[in-house]
Amino acid sequence: MSDEIRIIPIRGVGEVRPGDDVAAVLVEAFEAQGQRFESGDVLVVTQKIVSKAEGRIVDLSTVTPSEQALEIAKVNGRDARQIEVALRETAKIVRLDMQRGILISETRHGFICANAGVDGSNLDLATEVSMLPIDSDVSADGIRAGVRERTGAEIAVIISDTFGRPWRTGQTNVAIGVSGMMTVHDYRGQTDSAGLVLVVTEIAVADDLASAAELVTGKLDRVPAGVIRGYAFQPGEGRATHLVRAAEFDMFR
Amino acid sequence: MSDEIRIIPIRGVGEVRPGDDVAAVLVEAFEAQGQRFESGDVLVVTQKIVSKAEGRIVDLSTVTPSEQALEIAKVNGRDARQIEVALRETAKIVRLDMQRGILISETRHGFICANAGVDGSNLDLATEVSMLPIDSDVSADGIRAGVRERTGAEIAVIISDTFGRPWRTGQTNVAIGVSGMMTVHDYRGQTDSAGLVLVVTEIAVADDLASAAELVTGKLDRVPAGVIRGYAFQPGEGRATHLVRAAEFDMFR
Repeated sequence: MSDEIRIIPIRGVGEVRPGDDVAAVLVEAFEAQGQRFESGDVLVVTQKIVSKAEGRIVDLSTVTPSEQALEIAKVNGRDARQIEVALRETAKIVRLDMQRGILISETRHGFICANAGVDGSNLDLATEVSMLPIDSDVSADGIRAGVRERTGAEIAVIISDTFGRPWRTGQTNVAIGVSGMMTVHDYRGQTDSAGLVLVVTEIAVADDLASAAELVTGKLDRVPAGVIRGYAFQPGEGRATHLVRAAEFDMFR
Repeated sequence: MSDEIRIIPIRGVGEVRPGDDVAAVLVEAFEAQGQRFESGDVLVVTQKIVSKAEGRIVDLSTVTPSEQALEIAKVNGRDARQIEVALRETAKIVRLDMQRGILISETRHGFICANAGVDGSNLDLATEVSMLPIDSDVSADGIRAGVRERTGAEIAVIISDTFGRPWRTGQTNVAIGVSGMMTVHDYRGQTDSAGLVLVVTEIAVADDLASAAELVTGKLDRVPAGVIRGYAFQPGEGRATHLVRAAEFDMFR
């Protein structure tokens, strides 16, 4: 049926290296599996390959941990050098639980997440960690332009990462970079089925799309991106940083 | 391709009334649009029709607001009787911001959300509000059994609601009821592409599935449910209440 939505994994993407063109890599892999980008698609790209392509990787053998990093590592048993990178990537410490060695950071982008998004999984070497892209909205712009150039398709691009959240266990995918669409669908002022005005409904559709793509990207399957087809996003100049709640409206920071 | 995921809206569902059988209503609507449930489907049902069917609706003309409700209403300009219902549904107040009239509740289920999930949209009358199901995991069990009975299909069921979250603007869909699947995909102990053990990755797949279904259910389109096909969930006895972070591990309660 025409009104259903499809989530198509992009498989067969090899190792991405610093300087690689993410758009080129994904277009090639998508076409190799017999698919083509179409205008209206939402391409969701997981953060790790974007960080790799942008060289946002640190070899821990080059890092000397600070006193604070050593103290946190003593509690949580992790590599103090990785914690040091997380501290350097932290614009502001939101919470530091020294009982359990948990660091919740505000990143330079304004995102609030554990360890400033610094992560050691799915990299080439056990001694490497990845950092978030410097400006993941700009990274999304680049991928979108690259796909347009190679295929002619007018798509939206979301860069996703896996964040924890307060109150609820587990992690979900959220948008850390957006290009070509509005991030929030604002229903305020529209009327519901009883003709009543919906007062406070703003849906973070970019995060919903990132979560949906998680269903195909998983963690271990080497599927670094997915294409969501059939979702009528609102075109526009949305930015993932629009999804950050301003500190003065945040009761839990 | 066989490895893609489809999200199929269930349209043409009429008004649901107290005592209605949600499974019967959804099976009928799904078949009326030429579809059939298949084993392995995930059926995501939005909270409102479940609450309606279970009679979890209050007519505000029967409610007398307390002093506290009147005070909050004075600030936020909303109906004091609706706030009264939210206070009655609140097991514990997590935050009450009297500058802006915002109530963050812990519900009887343990969920943390605004106004204990009490909501006035998409009901028959302007004077009605809906409350969350008494036990939305049990509600999900009932729908799952009903679909099995009518179609023979072994599916998983998620009841979804739209919750806000700290730190990020907008709302996303989360699972408030789950039946037939594990809520969290636990990667801990598995190895990544470099052969390293993934230490802390637990993905809240039930919430990702709820978010994915939001792409078809929307807010205004009278699509109260969606079917996600092609996602290999882990069968099991997961409960939405498993997604509640225990207070002692919650740095932000």
